[in-house]
Amino acid sequence: MMKTFPLSRVYQLLEPGPVVLLTTAQKGRANVMTMSWHMMVEFEPPLVACIVSSANYSFAALRATRECVIAIPAVRLARKVVAVGNSSGSDVDKFAAFHLTPVPAKAVAPPLIQECFANLECRVADARMVSQYNLFILEVVNAWRDPAQKNPKTIHHHGYGTFVVDGRTIRLKSKMR
Amino acid sequence: MMKTFPLSRVYQLLEPGPVVLLTTAQKGRANVMTMSWHMMVEFEPPLVACIVSSANYSFAALRATRECVIAIPAVRLARKVVAVGNSSGSDVDKFAAFHLTPVPAKAVAPPLIQECFANLECRVADARMVSQYNLFILEVVNAWRDPAQKNPKTIHHHGYGTFVVDGRTIRLKSKMR
Repeated sequence: MMKTFPLSRVYQLLEPGPVVLLTTAQKGRANVMTMSWHMMVEFEPPLVACIVSSANYSFAALRATRECVIAIPAVRLARKVVAVGNSSGSDVDKFAAFHLTPVPAKAVAPPLIQECFANLECRVADARMVSQYNLFILEVVNAWRDPAQKNPKTIHHHGYGTFVVDGRTIRLKSKMR
Repeated sequence: MMKTFPLSRVYQLLEPGPVVLLTTAQKGRANVMTMSWHMMVEFEPPLVACIVSSANYSFAALRATRECVIAIPAVRLARKVVAVGNSSGSDVDKFAAFHLTPVPAKAVAPPLIQECFANLECRVADARMVSQYNLFILEVVNAWRDPAQKNPKTIHHHGYGTFVVDGRTIRLKSKMR
């Protein structure tokens, strides 16, 4: 199951640019979308910027409730990630349809996703760029990591369902955090 | 050499989260930094958000001139990318020190980098989030691709000089652009 993950290291999960899932909840109903447009903004407390298009069903819930969970899937979930992206919460309960297991979060209403190796509970910290750019600034308030998933390989979207999977790791002497 | 690349496909270069180089120019002097905190904001015209810390020497040039080039290196440049990140333009001419070749851009003063497989000429489109978050919204005005570098593998930063290199490609039926 999920163990807590230090907020100071959240950037190491998101900075590499993985495709993620984003959960929201409104009126007792949870939804999930696929997202690739996100970046770190600050190390600690971790701030994350992301684009959630107003064309997405999740947009209204995120704007109204100001809460979400960023769940990071490994490559074994790639087919489900695409299925989530190909459907809309307006007509499908995606958790049921794609056999994703919602797990209650600690500080926010949207659920964690059990099958993902990391889950980040987020609150909207700044919505001033939403109307012009659909850009939300999120603060990560709790982070979770599944220790049973060792060295998960994430996927990176290159457009139209083409994904590059993490390959080898190289280590170089860097002063960069 | 560089060929033009369609602006409509720029997101396919940046969305996967590669480590990039960012060039600036001020008072006739070019500089380059390493950057991983960036994301797409809009498809076309391509808008890109990025964080350039005010602690970086490049910050002042980017804010004053409102121009930069995002240059995307393949893994063979990894050591140079780290060397660029480990040094400051305040005391080093990094192009000379690390044998990176500046190439004049078409619409902006900062140079392209010949060794990079893609180069994106950018203008600052929105600086309203700079003072609070060091967040710049850039518009890509010209994009270039080196056709001699086939299937370049990019690198993704996981913190402290650990990079994951692009691995295998998978293709799934997606409605997602």
